[in-house]
Amino acid sequence: MIWKKVDDGFYLVFEPGDKVIESFTKFCKDHHLRTGIFSGIGAFSKITLGHYNITTKRYMEKDVSDSLEVLSVNGNVTIKEKEPFVHMHAIVSDANMNFYGGHVIEAEVSVTLELHVTDFRETLHREFDEELGLFTIK
Amino acid sequence: MIWKKVDDGFYLVFEPGDKVIESFTKFCKDHHLRTGIFSGIGAFSKITLGHYNITTKRYMEKDVSDSLEVLSVNGNVTIKEKEPFVHMHAIVSDANMNFYGGHVIEAEVSVTLELHVTDFRETLHREFDEELGLFTIK
Amino acid sequence: MIWKKVDDGFYLVFEPGDKVIESFTKFCKDHHLRTGIFSGIGAFSKITLGHYNITTKRYMEKDVSDSLEVLSVNGNVTIKEKEPFVHMHAIVSDANMNFYGGHVIEAEVSVTLELHVTDFRETLHREFDEELGLFTIK
Repeated sequence: MIWKKVDDGFYLVFEPGDKVIESFTKFCKDHHLRTGIFSGIGAFSKITLGHYNITTKRYMEKDVSDSLEVLSVNGNVTIKEKEPFVHMHAIVSDANMNFYGGHVIEAEVSVTLELHVTDFRETLHREFDEELGLFTIK
Repeated sequence: MIWKKVDDGFYLVFEPGDKVIESFTKFCKDHHLRTGIFSGIGAFSKITLGHYNITTKRYMEKDVSDSLEVLSVNGNVTIKEKEPFVHMHAIVSDANMNFYGGHVIEAEVSVTLELHVTDFRETLHREFDEELGLFTIK
Repeated sequence: MIWKKVDDGFYLVFEPGDKVIESFTKFCKDHHLRTGIFSGIGAFSKITLGHYNITTKRYMEKDVSDSLEVLSVNGNVTIKEKEPFVHMHAIVSDANMNFYGGHVIEAEVSVTLELHVTDFRETLHREFDEELGLFTIK
């Protein structure tokens, strides 16, 4: 991954083979990025998506491996248990325009992911919500 | 809904049961947010979507009630007839990865909606366009 | 297309019949916008979408002409061969909620496209990557 400093944050350019959540989380730690929002476009070779089930309080997972155009990546960075946490949702499509989307557990870059992240230079925290079974922003 | 002031605007965290358009519009009025853009992710329990028909000049409506992952929420706030107006489009999916999307007439939060809104601290106005049958930004 | 200067860039309001990539690229040249990111919502009458095939190193193209709600438009502006280059991905849907999405080769506005672009007031460059067959940000 290469990165550039821009006015309000960073521009990250992921490279073939990069694991998005792992690389981005490491970047946030290394650059003390504690709270921000991001959006991006690119192409993946595989993605593991989650859909949260509020009854079972677990994510159902789905793996997709294909030539995937990344149509939308959105989300935020916050602090969860003292570490930067990347919360990302994405929509991708294959060559036949079958769509896949959800909470991104992990994704691997095929060509690139061009991601802009705004650094708010302050701190929003997640705390565990017993009722929802999730860490929500408090 | 809870909210935090950030550098360029606000971070809104909607809670279970919140009506998104109603709560967000009220927030804009209360905080004198007249013009901005927003994006967000989260999960809804129901949504009423519109698709504009340029011939009939009316929105066709569709209701969806399910456990819905919110894959993308985008839009803007402008002034329409002297009041803040939220123009929001969204894409959601159910647990079987059926997708629904369109102009958001209303939506109800199941788990959360994490929405960042940039406040431009100026004013863009919508005016009625006879030919299109809609209020467009002028 | 009409446009407004806002705090961090521009707000562009495309009008019926506007070609999005052509008009936006011209806007960037005219206003010396070299590097930025954008997002928007609106409605198109047609769109030409591409899906990149990393083996053939060519975009497969698909044309859609319909009453299309624009659910998501995201992307960036960078400098490619000394000129501003608009890299846009979009997701649209027709009245039956069939979804289409991909790399936007060109699109035509039916009602409007409300697009916010942040101007980073600096320069990111694309250079040709032999292995990928594409201009990537370096």
